[in-house]
Amino acid sequence: MQWTFVLLDKGVFMVNKKINVKNVMEPKSIAVIGASKNPSKIGHAILKNMLISGYIGKLYAVNPSSDEILGVKCYNSILEIKHKIDCAIISIPAKLVPQALEECGKKGIKGAIIISGGFREVGEVELENQIVEISEKYGIAVIGPNCLGIVNVEKHLDSIFLPTYKMKRPQAGKISFITQSGAVGSTLIDLIGESNIGISKFISYGNAAVLNEADLIEYLREDKQTEIIVMYVEGVKQGRRFYEELKKTTLKKPVILLKAGKGTLASKAAASHTGSLAGDSKVFSSMLKQAGVIEAQGLEELFDISKIFLTRLPKGKNVFVLTNGGGSGVLAIDAIESYKMKLASFDKKTINKLKKKLPSHVVVGNPFDVTGDSGNDRYRIVLEEAVKEPHIDAIIVITLFQTAGLNAEVVHDIINASNSTDKPLVAVAAGGAYTKLQLSILESYGIPTYESPTQAVYVLSKAYWYKRKRDMNVRIK
Amino acid sequence: MQWTFVLLDKGVFMVNKKINVKNVMEPKSIAVIGASKNPSKIGHAILKNMLISGYIGKLYAVNPSSDEILGVKCYNSILEIKHKIDCAIISIPAKLVPQALEECGKKGIKGAIIISGGFREVGEVELENQIVEISEKYGIAVIGPNCLGIVNVEKHLDSIFLPTYKMKRPQAGKISFITQSGAVGSTLIDLIGESNIGISKFISYGNAAVLNEADLIEYLREDKQTEIIVMYVEGVKQGRRFYEELKKTTLKKPVILLKAGKGTLASKAAASHTGSLAGDSKVFSSMLKQAGVIEAQGLEELFDISKIFLTRLPKGKNVFVLTNGGGSGVLAIDAIESYKMKLASFDKKTINKLKKKLPSHVVVGNPFDVTGDSGNDRYRIVLEEAVKEPHIDAIIVITLFQTAGLNAEVVHDIINASNSTDKPLVAVAAGGAYTKLQLSILESYGIPTYESPTQAVYVLSKAYWYKRKRDMNVRIK
Repeated sequence: MQWTFVLLDKGVFMVNKKINVKNVMEPKSIAVIGASKNPSKIGHAILKNMLISGYIGKLYAVNPSSDEILGVKCYNSILEIKHKIDCAIISIPAKLVPQALEECGKKGIKGAIIISGGFREVGEVELENQIVEISEKYGIAVIGPNCLGIVNVEKHLDSIFLPTYKMKRPQAGKISFITQSGAVGSTLIDLIGESNIGISKFISYGNAAVLNEADLIEYLREDKQTEIIVMYVEGVKQGRRFYEELKKTTLKKPVILLKAGKGTLASKAAASHTGSLAGDSKVFSSMLKQAGVIEAQGLEELFDISKIFLTRLPKGKNVFVLTNGGGSGVLAIDAIESYKMKLASFDKKTINKLKKKLPSHVVVGNPFDVTGDSGNDRYRIVLEEAVKEPHIDAIIVITLFQTAGLNAEVVHDIINASNSTDKPLVAVAAGGAYTKLQLSILESYGIPTYESPTQAVYVLSKAYWYKRKRDMNVRIK
Repeated sequence: MQWTFVLLDKGVFMVNKKINVKNVMEPKSIAVIGASKNPSKIGHAILKNMLISGYIGKLYAVNPSSDEILGVKCYNSILEIKHKIDCAIISIPAKLVPQALEECGKKGIKGAIIISGGFREVGEVELENQIVEISEKYGIAVIGPNCLGIVNVEKHLDSIFLPTYKMKRPQAGKISFITQSGAVGSTLIDLIGESNIGISKFISYGNAAVLNEADLIEYLREDKQTEIIVMYVEGVKQGRRFYEELKKTTLKKPVILLKAGKGTLASKAAASHTGSLAGDSKVFSSMLKQAGVIEAQGLEELFDISKIFLTRLPKGKNVFVLTNGGGSGVLAIDAIESYKMKLASFDKKTINKLKKKLPSHVVVGNPFDVTGDSGNDRYRIVLEEAVKEPHIDAIIVITLFQTAGLNAEVVHDIINASNSTDKPLVAVAAGGAYTKLQLSILESYGIPTYESPTQAVYVLSKAYWYKRKRDMNVRIK
């Protein structure tokens, strides 16, 4: 429920139609307009993926030249369908989109995902304005045009037209994505699909003709399944409102954002991609900071930083590092210093206790180096104390799984430690198939994993920054 | 052939024994001292891995309590063996090492890898000094102690005691590694073992009692199979000589180096790891720069940067970006600006030619966005021109393999383009199993691949820096 101010070339419109994002994100019935029998058409792939994903609601197909596609009854026009329809997924040539959307309006459909490109991004501003006007006239929540569509894992709703054998879909989880670029978004989804980490919603919103980043962040803030929000943004439609929505959102859940088109050259490229004006990057960065948003510096950071919020937030800066490889420990300590975190220490009593239980060549300190000949037992002994130690705010467990002394059970010692504490626990390991398997087991128990000690410390420092900023903003509020 | 200056607690020794690194890196016969029947012992794993790797030379086992281990005849002492032995791999308790090394000397063995820990890193300075003295007395090239040993892929020599099912060994290739930390080294090896990239030598040198980083870099400079050198260093024994060796080496091949223990806290940790004094980090960094060495900022960068040298060096700064995902293109352009590279452009004639061959919604420019509905043909058409264009110094090909329009053959279009030019060509893609397969095919043809456009530009900028620095140093020389 909101007033929307629409800037058209003709002037500013103020409309009070209820535009509800839920109509497009959580529809109980969907019609695919432009569904096709031809497997090389996007309209075919969309219908197929809706069927493969096992969409919970009712599904209809619209195409005047077919009676049935993939076992789904096909109608000549949306107006022919007698049943109630919540949302239309539109994949037809750009010029035909306004008429199709008008028919959706007449039919009482309140949500639409326009996959088709060929609008503002190629200079067809008038065509895009028509979409906006029709949306306003009928109160249709529109995602797109020029987008990849959405995934709602809980509802088994998958409008993405990329083949599932080429792009894996993730399991249900806590992270939701808002992405202006379909390419960036689908890369992330595919990477996450390979891991043991789940997602809740995925929204590729393209040109943002109607629903923009501010509307979507507002929606995800209230969405119960979403606990972490990841965004890829090229340009912003309503700067002030975006800031306000972000600020409200970070009080409830972390937002990790990557802004592309930061340089002057890149902002030109962004304009021809989704028709966005990228704006001044320094102003944008400080806006994000003030709003409590974590700004990622690259694609790989988006996923890395979001994962850290799968574990608990650190209450302070004191990090404890446990390792069976000295070199990795040194790298972690380097990072603790350069990211301005602190070295946590055990109290003297615990140190003496640990020294008695461990061989003399173990390096008792921080990093706590149980050395390369360690079995699972040393990890267990040290972690049992670390989870209780009041001076430790966060635990990094580095494991060289490749050593002969450790067996696969050590991941359960790490999982048990994580389950028995309210401190964040992060695992670090890298390697081939054997190590990857151990990491995926850790992830399936909600433990964030990283390939390098440096990354692990970096993301912990971001989580700590977020917590402090949030607590501060809560007090100010 | 070199004079070695040895700093002992008692004073400075100057010795003229010939210590030849080849004796330990390329031996024709090896004895494993401390070979064991017990599968949980390191001495068992070493012998086993030497057998599994199919070592080309003669192999002997030494252990007074066995007659035969894993089918290899076992001797009571090294002195009992009648045949000539080039190198001993020693894995016995630290206190017994000096005597064993002394026997090696008497037997005329000129190379030794001491795996055992328990020396300077735990305060046993005197024990380590004994090793140095014996090495000097007999002219034994010693690697270690407290190390993981070596791999020489061409000779099928693998002294690493980590099980092969836990740590994959890479195929033969151009990259060689010198690492002070066994943990860091084995993580890298395992990661590379999973890829389609090969290595030549791997040297984990631990405490560097005799052979240090300067000796090893000198050896790899002259090694014909080694074309790229990767180093992980905690501290340096002979600073001035190290600098000179590095400077000479970078004239011939790139060196990528990660220095750990840069902070004051971390250098304390390094001391208890390999007994190294880590030194001042700013001085060290500027020394590397002057020597033409590329300094990596973290573990992940070591491998990323080294891969770029599998392709050709860029002659200039002008980078061309081809993509089927607009967002990824924008990220690449951002990176080109922030890493101070330049946007390459086609001349007008080529632009007109390309416009005629491609659909109108393709964004002709840089990034050159063939858009999400592209088939292989558009990649082929644009690459054919890009490889010839004189204003382009380097090509980044971003491929969203997930799209329906591209089939698997597109990797061959990229490979053909790379084979038909003297410009560096780098591929960017990320995703799950399907995409990973395509990336590994590209790698098998010597094309460096990266998960993000930002990384690809970053490593290209490093390659360009290296080339300029090298050309400058060659002129000065």
